[in-house]
Amino acid sequence: MEELTDELRASFDKVLSTLNTQAREKTESLVRSLKASLDALTDSAKAREKIDQMSSEVTADNPYSRLMALKRMGIVEDYEKIRECSIAVVGIGGVGSVAAEMLTRCGIGKLILFDYDKVELANMNRLFFRPEQSGLSKVEAAKETLVEINPDVQFETYNYDITSMESFSHFCGRLKEGALDGGQLDLVLSCVDNYGARMAINSACNEIGQTWMESGVSENAVSGHIQLMVPGKLACFSCAPPLVVASEIDERTLKREGVCAASLPTTMGIVAGLLVQNVLKHLLNFGQVSECLGYNAMKDFFSLMVLQPNPSCSDSWCLKQQELFAQKVKAEEKNRAEIGSGEVEEDLPLHAENEWNIVVEDDPVESAGQKSELNEAKHKPAEGLKFEFEPAKSSVNNDELVAGSEKDIGELMSQLDQLK
Amino acid sequence: MEELTDELRASFDKVLSTLNTQAREKTESLVRSLKASLDALTDSAKAREKIDQMSSEVTADNPYSRLMALKRMGIVEDYEKIRECSIAVVGIGGVGSVAAEMLTRCGIGKLILFDYDKVELANMNRLFFRPEQSGLSKVEAAKETLVEINPDVQFETYNYDITSMESFSHFCGRLKEGALDGGQLDLVLSCVDNYGARMAINSACNEIGQTWMESGVSENAVSGHIQLMVPGKLACFSCAPPLVVASEIDERTLKREGVCAASLPTTMGIVAGLLVQNVLKHLLNFGQVSECLGYNAMKDFFSLMVLQPNPSCSDSWCLKQQELFAQKVKAEEKNRAEIGSGEVEEDLPLHAENEWNIVVEDDPVESAGQKSELNEAKHKPAEGLKFEFEPAKSSVNNDELVAGSEKDIGELMSQLDQLK
Repeated sequence: MEELTDELRASFDKVLSTLNTQAREKTESLVRSLKASLDALTDSAKAREKIDQMSSEVTADNPYSRLMALKRMGIVEDYEKIRECSIAVVGIGGVGSVAAEMLTRCGIGKLILFDYDKVELANMNRLFFRPEQSGLSKVEAAKETLVEINPDVQFETYNYDITSMESFSHFCGRLKEGALDGGQLDLVLSCVDNYGARMAINSACNEIGQTWMESGVSENAVSGHIQLMVPGKLACFSCAPPLVVASEIDERTLKREGVCAASLPTTMGIVAGLLVQNVLKHLLNFGQVSECLGYNAMKDFFSLMVLQPNPSCSDSWCLKQQELFAQKVKAEEKNRAEIGSGEVEEDLPLHAENEWNIVVEDDPVESAGQKSELNEAKHKPAEGLKFEFEPAKSSVNNDELVAGSEKDIGELMSQLDQLK
Repeated sequence: MEELTDELRASFDKVLSTLNTQAREKTESLVRSLKASLDALTDSAKAREKIDQMSSEVTADNPYSRLMALKRMGIVEDYEKIRECSIAVVGIGGVGSVAAEMLTRCGIGKLILFDYDKVELANMNRLFFRPEQSGLSKVEAAKETLVEINPDVQFETYNYDITSMESFSHFCGRLKEGALDGGQLDLVLSCVDNYGARMAINSACNEIGQTWMESGVSENAVSGHIQLMVPGKLACFSCAPPLVVASEIDERTLKREGVCAASLPTTMGIVAGLLVQNVLKHLLNFGQVSECLGYNAMKDFFSLMVLQPNPSCSDSWCLKQQELFAQKVKAEEKNRAEIGSGEVEEDLPLHAENEWNIVVEDDPVESAGQKSELNEAKHKPAEGLKFEFEPAKSSVNNDELVAGSEKDIGELMSQLDQLK
């Protein structure tokens, strides 16, 4: 734009030299105000320079100082590792767009965005998109904003429906080969709003053994959840009924004219925040990665659960992954027994979950009380899921769903809930 | 901009009529590309039209359809009420800016923004501000973005430090007279990052009996809290030591060159979401408004507490408000006894807390178990606060702070915490 106006100015100068004083002054004044307007507008399109290396230096122009400070605070050991990570975000709506923005601001290496929808004014009650983006595809509008926020992040966008036949195989291909190094992604985030898309992500991830995280918000806008999916190790989307998701019947209702689900920027922002917080903990090895976390806005009630894989899951790839996982655990146990405990762990990469190099815990001691009972339950071979209530066909409230193996925590939580 | 280019074009046409064919073509082509660039840029500055009345109609161009759906879903009775509400946000940083955006997208009536700081690239690890806004005052940059997102909201911005003598009295004035109707605000949100500013807000709100909500994020970026403050009814900021806030010593450390606190867009987004969710519940009468909610990101642990006012609070206005509140409760009790229970409530406005028209609960029945014991504790006359641990001079962890009067919930929570 600057060059264009300079060029225009040069042409003007040539033209002006042939004009009389009055016409020259008028035209010059017009160009000046045009230039000023252009400068103001181009300023607003001016992005920051790329940054080669993350620095801890505390200066006003370092966008990473507050993130690198996590190292000095003793929270994260190697923050820079985030630049090597590649993540897919499927669904760039109220949760996915905010999740993508958080990851972008955190300086993630690469983001691949999938969505087939367009931005409309009806989306303005959620964060991220702006009214003037109406009509643009969500992935294009998102990329436009995100590149400007952080030009260090690599973006890839696909404006298609992952559940369609031809798109699905392309989608699987990008999960397998879309990372910065041409390999499999570190993580896939499901931020979609329907059962079909969740099932498609589930199938793809089960088949390629891809760790992913699911998220959802209820139709009445006041509850949500996030869930970690490690194929074979934890329940997949087919293993257990969804916690908060429109049933197929409700989806059809949603599509009826004049009916729409409620949504709030608060609930969606909170779910996106909990999701990306879990992503950061998973990628950068700090804190405890939550396996399943529910949020009820009415009471500010949060529930933590563990969902074991279902040995009679309808997804055949899930069953294969369960078998692979059991073999891996067995091999590790054998390995430990041979080498002696303590030494094996040093050989394991930090990213145990992702690569199936699972650290097996010591046999729980009978007398260690509730805490070790819980750990025991957590690491027992899968025995399927028991629900306190039969999952209904319509949306199931978080508070009503308690995994059978977690009754200690479940009981306490329900007592807590009663107290509030 | 359109007129300017048209005018420019007219001058051009005049000029061009005097030129030869080659010069004319070159100049015309320059103007065409300039025009196209201008169109693209002006498009990005194009805001949506104002909307007179919120509608439930489900159309692509209705920004309120998903919010009005809260009524059909049975969550909110009168969503439109939000347009009459006026809120001050003090501190437009990582929490305040997101809170202001959420309220703007929800269609709040009026926002008054206070901050003395400028946007810098070092803020880019949190949501909201964009790199090209660097150098602008935070309140101006925020208003620029927010007006574009929702032109139905009224904005007032003050680029000053509320703790300075001259600004403080102006600040108090805006709380008292800044609402849409010229009266007192519905709510003040504290999103500041230091003790001094919190104390200033506390003093102002105690003096004028202003309900407010406090928020904070720890220096290590992995915990935060929100707290409701109703002068006289609940603990004020002087009544109880802050839960998560830099001590004065740490603040001085922060200002030392080369040292800065860590921050994450996730934690700040979650705290902003929890804060505004609480605001919506408070303003629109749904769910349970949380009095004090803590968040620990390391374990995804959330704690709910009630903090009673301290009868020996150092703030004299807090003591006066406590007296006023006690009188109010007494008057209500007397009123109830005279008229008979059940009838009084009809005369009370929905917004009991705000106007001191407190509904007094029935005397708790001895045999009603834990739940009513808790309610009893909640509504007992204030007896000050007891802490399990002496609040340290540096940041205090949420998990370590349990109000003495809440030991049932506290015990359960600490047990829960052990389990995780």
